[in-house]
Amino acid sequence: MTDPKQDFSVDREDLERFMGAALAVAGADQASAEAVTRALVTASRMGTDSHGLRLLPHYLQALKGGRIKGAPNMVFHQRLAATGFLDADDGLGHLAGYSAMEHAVAMAEEVGMGAVAVGNSSHFGAAGCYALAAAERGYLGMAFCNSDPFVLLHDGAKPFHGTNPIAFAAPVAGEQPYLLDMATSSVPWNRVQQYGAIGRELPDQVAANAAGEVSRVPSEIAALLPLGGSDFGFKGAGLGGMVEVLSSTLSGMQHGFKLLPMGGPDMSTPRGVGHFFLAMKPDAFVEEGTFAKGMADYLADLRAQPASPNARVMAPGDREWRCQAKRDAEGIPLDSANQSAYAEIAEKYQIAPLTRLD
Amino acid sequence: MTDPKQDFSVDREDLERFMGAALAVAGADQASAEAVTRALVTASRMGTDSHGLRLLPHYLQALKGGRIKGAPNMVFHQRLAATGFLDADDGLGHLAGYSAMEHAVAMAEEVGMGAVAVGNSSHFGAAGCYALAAAERGYLGMAFCNSDPFVLLHDGAKPFHGTNPIAFAAPVAGEQPYLLDMATSSVPWNRVQQYGAIGRELPDQVAANAAGEVSRVPSEIAALLPLGGSDFGFKGAGLGGMVEVLSSTLSGMQHGFKLLPMGGPDMSTPRGVGHFFLAMKPDAFVEEGTFAKGMADYLADLRAQPASPNARVMAPGDREWRCQAKRDAEGIPLDSANQSAYAEIAEKYQIAPLTRLD
Repeated sequence: MTDPKQDFSVDREDLERFMGAALAVAGADQASAEAVTRALVTASRMGTDSHGLRLLPHYLQALKGGRIKGAPNMVFHQRLAATGFLDADDGLGHLAGYSAMEHAVAMAEEVGMGAVAVGNSSHFGAAGCYALAAAERGYLGMAFCNSDPFVLLHDGAKPFHGTNPIAFAAPVAGEQPYLLDMATSSVPWNRVQQYGAIGRELPDQVAANAAGEVSRVPSEIAALLPLGGSDFGFKGAGLGGMVEVLSSTLSGMQHGFKLLPMGGPDMSTPRGVGHFFLAMKPDAFVEEGTFAKGMADYLADLRAQPASPNARVMAPGDREWRCQAKRDAEGIPLDSANQSAYAEIAEKYQIAPLTRLD
Repeated sequence: MTDPKQDFSVDREDLERFMGAALAVAGADQASAEAVTRALVTASRMGTDSHGLRLLPHYLQALKGGRIKGAPNMVFHQRLAATGFLDADDGLGHLAGYSAMEHAVAMAEEVGMGAVAVGNSSHFGAAGCYALAAAERGYLGMAFCNSDPFVLLHDGAKPFHGTNPIAFAAPVAGEQPYLLDMATSSVPWNRVQQYGAIGRELPDQVAANAAGEVSRVPSEIAALLPLGGSDFGFKGAGLGGMVEVLSSTLSGMQHGFKLLPMGGPDMSTPRGVGHFFLAMKPDAFVEEGTFAKGMADYLADLRAQPASPNARVMAPGDREWRCQAKRDAEGIPLDSANQSAYAEIAEKYQIAPLTRLD
């Protein structure tokens, strides 16, 4: 790799080749490597950089440490016609996620909707990937996941919930899907680190110090506030709780407060992450075609709304699809930290390095 | 009724008697009157005063005006084993809501989960009532509803979504259910009116003037901001959009932006409100009893969390159940506006007035 200070973008196919090779060397079987690659590349193409290619080194480390099994024996237990449980056998959460959503879609095809609780899993990247997988097949999709604690309860002084995301996607005829993918905190944890690195103050009402007091100083931050801040954080915390109940309680896993931290230092003990996936068939409620027409009307009205000065009204996903089109044309950028990390992986795993696009 | 400036509390039974009688005089059949009474009294007992007894005059007006049918012919169309559509025939949304959730629970009992989209409906009061109805039967319940526009899109200058609520309830063994019921704006519209009436400034980042600029002056307010305010309102707006898609697009109704205003002046044209209800059987994913044990562990850990000074950490619903216990013991309070409104109804409809508790 070249000087990490340079602009460095890569082709999607090259990135996929590199990820697949690295994951294979780290012990991932083909299905697992494909699922991780699919999820990370999906996120990176859409501009969800917090959950894209930067996570590869983490998964490699977790595979090498033994926390995650590269060749798991995931077993799906169908419980009733619309519900089931996927035991992910401590494998990669991405394979668990895509598999579970496949089962949910299959049930939705039969009985109108289906849901799968996943247990004994691990970090699955961006929740939106799995909601999107359903929408790409023509179904409404929802995905939820718990995580180790980063976020205060409303009026709480210590982190209790994870950033517990909610993802929702719906098919749109002739267009990319409607796609909402949001943490139930205002900002992700790595935003704090990022602002700290560039010496920037955080927005108000997004984070707190070790005493649970709101702070804007990145170096002081010990917890995130739930969406809504000091005044209305009962909403963000309530949503985080809903995600927790769906992800861990319905899957029989320990709730997020008891999870080992994603970041280690323990990279050998499985964490027992839980997820929850739901798929619905759009035409399972009203006449065929009604949903498609309604989505088109709704999005046309939404996008025609007047915006505040210097702004633009967008539907959830519009920003992501625009970014994806740009990155598909121009390449996926790696910042200097990722350039270094990928160069290190290439050397350590004896993989041909990424090729920089001109 | 006595001097409306006095403290005035009433017995739950007396309130139910009064509501049932007034709704009957206004043309509601027994099932409709019982559903409205159940929903309004549930909200008032829990302290959700924005959606409790104060709404009775509104429903009476909508019945008298012909917007809402007091004796609708609601028809449930089962589409697949887990899904269906309830045509509410322009009846009261409360009857539609409780009926739809009954169908969802029945499907969940058979196939693990069930969902019902409701069309041709009307305002249903507090979304939490219907989620709660599922939880009281031992099921997880979710309820969503659209409304006429009050809330800006993120970066938008004009109201587009309603306050589009999300309600989620889960059964808890030996306790009242876990209950989240939240608008996807930070505050409800009547908070603006209430603050205006007492000359109080609004919190920052909850509302905007007619130009879409954030304002704290109640008299200037023309729209609410989505949860998250100027910086993170894309999350609240995205959640509001999810609720819109579930409530109106899946039910084949017009989306909220096109709905006639709840407050009139037109009280004769049906509005075509949409709702969406979902029920899940807790034991349809993992072994029986696992969910109940997980909820107990989660709530015990949550309630044991340290709080910020002068605060108390609570689970969603804890505040409501405390209020309900107090009001069941001491009576349900009516403020002076409601005292006047109920006295007027008593006179106009020839109903024995509410009895003030000593």
